[in-house]
Formats: sequence, structure tokens, C-alpha cells
Amino acid sequence: MSQNREVIVRELPKGALEPAHFEMREAPVPRPGDGEVRIRNILMSIDAANRAWMQGATYREAVKAGDVMHTYAIAEVVESRDPSLEPGQIVAVESRWADQVVVKARRAVRLPDVRPLSHLLSVYGIAGKTAYHGLVNVGRPKAGETVVVSAAAGSVGLFVGQIARALGCRAVGIAGGEDKCRWVVEHLGFDACVDHRGGNLFADLRQACPDGIDVYFDNVGGSVLETALFQMNLHGRVVCCGAVSQYDAQGPSGPRNLPGMVVVKRLRMEGFIVMDFADRDEAALADLHRWVDEGRLVVVEDIVEGLENAPAALIGLLAGENRGKRMVRVAPDP
Amino acid sequence: MSQNREVIVRELPKGALEPAHFEMREAPVPRPGDGEVRIRNILMSIDAANRAWMQGATYREAVKAGDVMHTYAIAEVVESRDPSLEPGQIVAVESRWADQVVVKARRAVRLPDVRPLSHLLSVYGIAGKTAYHGLVNVGRPKAGETVVVSAAAGSVGLFVGQIARALGCRAVGIAGGEDKCRWVVEHLGFDACVDHRGGNLFADLRQACPDGIDVYFDNVGGSVLETALFQMNLHGRVVCCGAVSQYDAQGPSGPRNLPGMVVVKRLRMEGFIVMDFADRDEAALADLHRWVDEGRLVVVEDIVEGLENAPAALIGLLAGENRGKRMVRVAPDP
Repeated sequence: MSQNREVIVRELPKGALEPAHFEMREAPVPRPGDGEVRIRNILMSIDAANRAWMQGATYREAVKAGDVMHTYAIAEVVESRDPSLEPGQIVAVESRWADQVVVKARRAVRLPDVRPLSHLLSVYGIAGKTAYHGLVNVGRPKAGETVVVSAAAGSVGLFVGQIARALGCRAVGIAGGEDKCRWVVEHLGFDACVDHRGGNLFADLRQACPDGIDVYFDNVGGSVLETALFQMNLHGRVVCCGAVSQYDAQGPSGPRNLPGMVVVKRLRMEGFIVMDFADRDEAALADLHRWVDEGRLVVVEDIVEGLENAPAALIGLLAGENRGKRMVRVAPDP
Repeated sequence: MSQNREVIVRELPKGALEPAHFEMREAPVPRPGDGEVRIRNILMSIDAANRAWMQGATYREAVKAGDVMHTYAIAEVVESRDPSLEPGQIVAVESRWADQVVVKARRAVRLPDVRPLSHLLSVYGIAGKTAYHGLVNVGRPKAGETVVVSAAAGSVGLFVGQIARALGCRAVGIAGGEDKCRWVVEHLGFDACVDHRGGNLFADLRQACPDGIDVYFDNVGGSVLETALFQMNLHGRVVCCGAVSQYDAQGPSGPRNLPGMVVVKRLRMEGFIVMDFADRDEAALADLHRWVDEGRLVVVEDIVEGLENAPAALIGLLAGENRGKRMVRVAPDP
């Protein structure tokens, strides 16, 4: 391949993200310098966090207009100018939306031999580990407690509810649309799932959580968080994982019952990112592998084919169209 | 005394609390039944939380229209129909705005022999213990960290900053008005104090906290909390003690950067009330007594004379006119 394809951010979005904010272009295949490797993307992770990166510096460098869009990806080394890596090796890397990318060799992490590779982006990747660490190490539910998770059909949410069940908790999802909610209960085994588009979130959630909420795993923020806060039990815990309802909003609005509910109910609200618990990844992966082998965790993946479809894949994710971990396949598993 | 004076809540406030929401009346002196005691109020605690009680059930029973206003008080037993208490004993009790009140004997807590009795409502009472447990056991600052506290001249805030200093932290207050801020620095020994009425809170706070904020002890909620959140360091802690800016507000508004900042900065926001840490009161009081004896804690009290002035004392507290723990004296120390 002498030409490389790249998707650049033409313009940073002010409101909703649209296809016109991106542009695909051809560019020469990049050449690695000393200490660098050229990689070929296989699977690119599509995450709500990608949108947050466009709003400025978060826990990482911001995406700027003119950048090739940033992404976390699984890739194959095709050319190495560093003794630590050689062609054919499979790595996880902070990559870009392109066929091929040059990265620093020391930033590429060699991956274990797990097939399909997509599982390294879902249950054994950031999604599964985020669900695990957020629920187990931040939320710390006890058996018999009620765990609620929003974006329950999303890449992280679907594992949160299933892990809650594996820990002996009542698992209640919140998702958009009746079909999705039915699927969360029937396919993923949640005890209940409430449609936040049904117009009756407060009453429906109350009915699904007759003993109140002990742990709320929040992926959305905004009015869904506000509703859940009213139904938390004393000393409840709110795991703050994301705020997808806010990333695309023009005027973000905070829950009106904050900090009131935190004071009155003595809640703990705590944010985290998966890297904060890297020292506990080994234990997490052991549990996740065991639960998959025992059939207690259903792995759902939503793979969009083709680099050219990456913008639509991200925009659709923000609209909530995915079920399970969304990724874009740029090349087949080697 | 054959007649008793009582202050009743004529009407629950919808917006700002006003004198017309209260009415003083005479009533017969109440008679205790079996297991009850008649007490004479000496000092009534005036707290922002009193206003929150009027908004519905919180961590305790709500105040309703027609009730004699609820209060926490220090009182003397004058008539006992329970073997556990006898006339002349000094107790802490959930009381009412009145000269004399009948309460269940088992709800009255005998107090240690500390004089003046007012210290049992300030530094060795709920205010001091709230400051101590919130900062030490919830915020958990390390020496060298920056601690910010709002309502810094208030009953709790003034101890928070002084305790932070005693622990080797940089203590920064937020208060309303230049005079108050100067007093917080000069009289209480904070490292800095920022005027939230100065029109430049963000920039002024940034200047007072050049290394960012590690622990924010929040007594106010609303826009001050929003501003502080933007300046928190990674893994910072927000101690949620109160939301005085919201109690009197008609349309409460949540900080727009929640839960965003909690996610991005991996903050822990945690609510508490002083009773949650009753099992650590002994250690708290030992530290507080030692710091007072060493001159490291300045005790400031704001005592309003006369039961009839209780409504104005509460309204003024909500407007921020007090410096230090506000209380109403109903009768002299015996």
C-alpha cells in the first residue's frame, strides 16, 4: 500500500457532532523514525469519550481541528525501528483514524494471544475492565443490594449489570427504547430495564427498585442522574463513569439536586478512569475470564466495517444506536 | 413560670424565609408524662439546616406549618418523670423554640461539665465535630495540601480552616464581603480568604490556590461549588456538608459541571452528617480540646439574646450576617 487513508477533524463541533465535521483524505504512508514503529490498524475503539476529547483537555490531550481523529486501537506492527517490537506483533496503542500510523514504540503495548481480537476491546479490554473496576472497586456493592446502570445496552453498561448479577445483586438497567430494554432483560439477564424515553422514568425506576438504589453506575449525567439521585438509599454510592448526555449538549445542565442529595443521603459520588486501577487488572481479568467461561457473562460486540464509516459509527454511538461495544474494523484479524 | 412562650411556624416559606413565617404565642407550661422530662432551654442552636428542615424530610423529620419550630438545644431539666434524669441536670436535646418543652427522657443526652455551656454548641458541639469529622475523616487531607472552605466565617467553616492549618495544610476561605474575608485571615489565621461577592471569584480563587485545590469543604453548593470544581486537582475530594445557597432558592440550580468534573478529575464527592462518626467523637474531642488549649483554635461565638429574636437570628444567618456559631440565649447558664 503506497497510499494511506486518514480521517481528519475539519472543524470542532459546537453542538451535535455531524458527518461534515470530518473529512477523509489520502496521504503518503508515514515512515517511522528511530524508536518508532509503523502500525496497521485492525480494530478502532469507538467511545463516547472520543466526543469529550473534542471539548478540550480531559484526562488526556485534546483533539484539535486539523488533527487526524484520535482513537484507541488494536493494530499490527508492520515496520519497526525499535528493538522492542517486530513486524507481525499485535499491540494496543493510542492511534489515529487511518489505515496506517506511526507511533512511538514505547507507547505500544503488546497484547496477549486472545482470539477474536475484538474481545480485547470489549470484555477483556477497556469496556470490561471499566465495568469491573467501576463497580467492584468504586461502587463496592454487597450481595443483595440494588445496582442501577444507565446506558445499560452500551459497551460498559452491559457488563456492569451482568457483573452485578454475578456478585449476587439485583441488576436494573436504564436504556433508550422499549426494544433495547427488552433485549437487556432477555438477552443479558438483567432483573429489569427501564426506558428513559418512556416519559415516566421516575415512577418506572421506582417500580424496578422497590428497595431503593444502593449503587448507581452513571454513564450519562443530566436528568437521568438527577432522577436516580432522588431514589438512592442512605450511604449509597454513585460511580461517575461518563456523562454522555452532556458531551453533545450546547448548554450543559447539572442535576438540580446536587449537592443536596449527596448531603441529605450521605452519598459518595466518585469518578474514575480504568487506568487508576491498573494494579488490579490481573484480578479483574481473572474474574472476567472465569465468568465468560462459565457462561455468566454474555459478550456483545457491535463491529462497523470500514475506516470510511468511522464518523457515522461515532455519531450513531452518541445517538445511542449501538448494542454492546462499538468498534470499526479497518483490516481483518491476521 | 405559669405561662410558656413558643415560636410557631405560621406558614412554610416558598422562597426566602421572612419574619412573617413565624409567630410568638403564649401557651400553658407543658406537663411531662411517664418517661418524659420538662426542660428549660438555655441556648438554642441556630443552623442553616433549620431552613432545610422546612423543605421536607431530610435526615430527620420535617418541620410543618403549625409546629413549634424545631431546634437543637442545651437545656436544664426542671421536672422529671423518668428515673434516668433529675432536676438541675444539663442536657442536649432535640427541642423547640420555647421557654420550656417536654421531651422523652431517653432522647436527652447528659452533657459533660464544660463552661461556658456555649462551647458545647460551638467547638465541642456539632459545629466543631462537623468541621473535624468532615475534614479529617471525609476529606482526609495530607500535610502540604490546599484545603478550601466556603462559608469560612460560619460556625463550621471557621473551624475547618483552623483545623486544616493545625494539620499542616494551606487553608483558603471563601466568604461574603471584604471585611469578613479580612477577619478570616487576620483573626482566624487562614492563609487567604476570597470574597465571593467580589465579582471575580474564579480568578481570585485561582490566585489564592496556585497549586489547585485538593480538598474543598462545601457548605454552600450552587455557583461557588461549580467554580471550585473547575480548580480541583486530580483525585481531589469534595466534602459535601451543606448547600446553604440552595435552601432559600426558589429554583435550585445544580453546578453545570457535574458530573463532568467528577469524571474528568476522578474526584470523590461525599456527604456526611456528624452522627455518622459518633464512634470517633472521643478522638475528635481530644484533638479539639488540645488545639484550644494550645491556642491553635480560636473559638468564635455569635450569641443573640432572647427567644423572641430567634426568627431574626435564623433569617440573618441565611443572609450570612453571622461570624462564628450563632445561637440564641433563652436563659442564663445556671
